Amino acid sequence: MKIVCIGSGNVATHMAIAFKEVGAEIIQVWSQNFRNAEILAAFTQAQPINNWNDLDRTADCYLIAVKDDAIAMVAEHLKGVKGVVIHTSGATALQTLSIVGHRYGVLYPLQTFSKSKAVDLKQVPLCIEGDSAETLEKVSVIAHLLSPLVSVVSTERRQILHLAAVFACNFSNHLYALSSAILEQHQLKFDLLKPLIAETAEKIKSSAPSSVQTGPAVRGDDETMKKHLALLDESPSLQAIYKILSKSIKSNNL
Amino acid sequence: MKIVCIGSGNVATHMAIAFKEVGAEIIQVWSQNFRNAEILAAFTQAQPINNWNDLDRTADCYLIAVKDDAIAMVAEHLKGVKGVVIHTSGATALQTLSIVGHRYGVLYPLQTFSKSKAVDLKQVPLCIEGDSAETLEKVSVIAHLLSPLVSVVSTERRQILHLAAVFACNFSNHLYALSSAILEQHQLKFDLLKPLIAETAEKIKSSAPSSVQTGPAVRGDDETMKKHLALLDESPSLQAIYKILSKSIKSNNL
Repeated sequence: MKIVCIGSGNVATHMAIAFKEVGAEIIQVWSQNFRNAEILAAFTQAQPINNWNDLDRTADCYLIAVKDDAIAMVAEHLKGVKGVVIHTSGATALQTLSIVGHRYGVLYPLQTFSKSKAVDLKQVPLCIEGDSAETLEKVSVIAHLLSPLVSVVSTERRQILHLAAVFACNFSNHLYALSSAILEQHQLKFDLLKPLIAETAEKIKSSAPSSVQTGPAVRGDDETMKKHLALLDESPSLQAIYKILSKSIKSNNL
Repeated sequence: MKIVCIGSGNVATHMAIAFKEVGAEIIQVWSQNFRNAEILAAFTQAQPINNWNDLDRTADCYLIAVKDDAIAMVAEHLKGVKGVVIHTSGATALQTLSIVGHRYGVLYPLQTFSKSKAVDLKQVPLCIEGDSAETLEKVSVIAHLLSPLVSVVSTERRQILHLAAVFACNFSNHLYALSSAILEQHQLKFDLLKPLIAETAEKIKSSAPSSVQTGPAVRGDDETMKKHLALLDESPSLQAIYKILSKSIKSNNL
């Protein structure tokens, strides 16, 4: 399995390294920024490129992991390549790749990737799609190299998954960040909250999140909420977030 | 160590059982609802009561784990008891207990408790306070029965911790619930998001949350955010939450 990795960000890095680890060959890493291509290429013993004329057009798979709005532009350069062209975006339609003609698909890893932390892809659900049954079969084989948790998911349903992931992951992480900022402002350590954050995430492995909601809003403890809003008096944006989320919890509008 | 447990909710249940497990004796469980008192009393081999005249006034510790707005009322009934009177609330001032005269304190477990899930209190940070050095010493001894992670924290700082915990825990859990609701509406399984939620919480054990923020808002991916808002067209309250949190992430107002 010869793969060209297009992109050098968080997703590209984690996936290229994971493919390498399961025995696939990363033959080239393309990045607009040649220095970034070099770094990931060094990790994967690949050739770094940033000129489309240097692209090896005989690979089995072209893995696109660039910003969503650059996918169409990248696809322009992949017309007529031999292998299957796959993007890894949650939000981008399969048809964005139709410009390559045929053999195009999606392999969306439902996970958050930061360069500083290893992720075990074997435990990550992978959502796949293909322009034909034949392509889907190819994408499935490629996906199964990384994880057994492979599901065929249409563009429409993948976009819903991605939206849900923004709520569950991106927004939660931002709440951790706000929480950390509140503590820091009062010279309190974020470490104190770490067991609580771990337990909150742990709980929903076995219970529906709405069934284990705790805190002043779900208890209808208006006095405590008033105190909290007073403590946030100098942060109107935090007050607004506190109000809208408390209101949403109280309304139980699920 | 003889303890009277006042309350029968999530916190009362977890703490009474944990005290029992480390060899303390729960002599009575008070609850406004006698049936609830009976249930927790059965777990802890205690006497269930719901009449203040039945209160044993000779215990070493009166542990108050009731709704915040009921703490002052409970304290009224504890005037002149022999032992130390302790509330477990994050948001309630130590002085709310001053009505009992002396020997009153706070033991606030920085954790989320649901009856359906066991919690290892040994890993939970406990924030303590006392009306005098002597009481503080007593509260400290009691707290150390449960966990080595005991810190003396003033009412003011405890209230900040509690506020930060609402952001990091209660609000995050609600985002999980919203995410689950979005998926359910489209017949998609919440299970698919569980590895992502686990990883999001895991990441911040070793990295500052703001440094590992991912998603369309931090990337400035306006097209994807527009698509997400369109998908939420029939849920104005979810749209509002999406907008306010994305704006907060983009402004990086930490």
